[in-house]
Amino acid sequence: MARPGARSRDRRDGLGGDQVEGRQAVLELLTVGRRPVRRVLLAQGLDPSPVLDEIEARAARRGVPVELVPRARLDALAKTEAPQGVVALARPVEDVSLEDLVTDGPGDTFLVVAAGITDPANLGAVLRAAECAGATGVVLPRHRAAHLTPTVTKVASGAVEHLAFALVGGVPTALEQLRRAGVRSVGLAGEAKHSLYDLDLSTGPVALVVGSEGKGLAPLVRKRCDEVVRIPQHGVLPSLNVGMASAVACFEVARQRGAAGGVRARSAQDG
Amino acid sequence: MARPGARSRDRRDGLGGDQVEGRQAVLELLTVGRRPVRRVLLAQGLDPSPVLDEIEARAARRGVPVELVPRARLDALAKTEAPQGVVALARPVEDVSLEDLVTDGPGDTFLVVAAGITDPANLGAVLRAAECAGATGVVLPRHRAAHLTPTVTKVASGAVEHLAFALVGGVPTALEQLRRAGVRSVGLAGEAKHSLYDLDLSTGPVALVVGSEGKGLAPLVRKRCDEVVRIPQHGVLPSLNVGMASAVACFEVARQRGAAGGVRARSAQDG
Repeated sequence: MARPGARSRDRRDGLGGDQVEGRQAVLELLTVGRRPVRRVLLAQGLDPSPVLDEIEARAARRGVPVELVPRARLDALAKTEAPQGVVALARPVEDVSLEDLVTDGPGDTFLVVAAGITDPANLGAVLRAAECAGATGVVLPRHRAAHLTPTVTKVASGAVEHLAFALVGGVPTALEQLRRAGVRSVGLAGEAKHSLYDLDLSTGPVALVVGSEGKGLAPLVRKRCDEVVRIPQHGVLPSLNVGMASAVACFEVARQRGAAGGVRARSAQDG
Repeated sequence: MARPGARSRDRRDGLGGDQVEGRQAVLELLTVGRRPVRRVLLAQGLDPSPVLDEIEARAARRGVPVELVPRARLDALAKTEAPQGVVALARPVEDVSLEDLVTDGPGDTFLVVAAGITDPANLGAVLRAAECAGATGVVLPRHRAAHLTPTVTKVASGAVEHLAFALVGGVPTALEQLRRAGVRSVGLAGEAKHSLYDLDLSTGPVALVVGSEGKGLAPLVRKRCDEVVRIPQHGVLPSLNVGMASAVACFEVARQRGAAGGVRARSAQDG
């Protein structure tokens, strides 16, 4: 099944992404067309909606069979809690090498290293934030971390179809490789001395490193980061969750690069 | 039941918040002590955890009964999908007047107007982002919008215990009142011409206005905003969701105020 040159020959070791649920995620899967889609399953009796029409039209254009199935069967097949009546079966997302991640991006490399996020909804939010902020690639640990499960792809709302992913055996080694490739790694940690806002992130290749829920960055990961910074908090609560913190940090990179002319901004819905 | 001066005499019309689920939300409820807590229910057979110990200790200190109940009973009572074995029953959160919201905050007023968010998880995320960024109050429509349901309070992770809330009959009228009180309203809309980052938000009372999922700001709400701006997007996806967009915008206010010395930053976990 794997194409020549693909690194994920064994699905169990790969990124996943073969089952995509939710309207936005399926629409983006069909629109981008980066990977073959085997089938789209639609629940019977759904209220008409422009997104559903668009899903059917794009499936037809790409020759992907659309099957109407009873709602109960679709819900039984679905792995997320609210598949919104739509499930697609596709070839898994193929990972690329860390080297490809650094050289493939247009303009300055902007990566996000998700260092051990196990909660699928959080990883999905990180991916969506990364894509919207203009990140080109994501580094994920091969083990002990969420990959592209149906919940991740659904929350990411199609971001997995646009981002390049590298799977690495260990994040500390990956950060070392990135450093040798000229990519500066910036870790987020609540107890860090320096503020994110004191960094000049306007130019140069950068990798934002975000840690696991609760535990944050592992000691060795933290040690290998070129810089470790915090997002200054102004409330009483201890912190944002990792998805929101990633959004704030990714958009700070984008803000600085936008001001420096380094990232082209598009106008888009924020609601 | 309502205290003298409370505006929510009828629970059906009020903010809600009487059932709080999830460890962080219940811990914050007991820690802050802004409202009486009737009872804490804990599922039997939970693995020991420091957060659970802390919940028990704080309940004991405040004289709140803690009841061990079978897991199945707790899950049946719970209104969120993952109550994490903890449900607390408390007096609903009381709303304040719009005038109180403007004058109560320390330093410069920083409000978030959630103009018709119906998805509880999104509203919860908006509240958490607002609190962490140092917002002092939140404006919610009395009708056709999510209030403080168990899902909202859980996702907000305790933010509802710290924020002040005003319920308003109509958002356009509320924005007009805020303008007369000297509060500048800034609406977020993807199709806006100007960028959030072009605004000077470093001083002065401000209210960020965020719209509903999908539809964004209603025309009349948009018209009453002093300024409408977008968060520049740099990816292919149309947008962040409203929770993440709120986090980015709230922390841009905080960033500018922090740089101007207007908001005191605390060091805190971001993971």
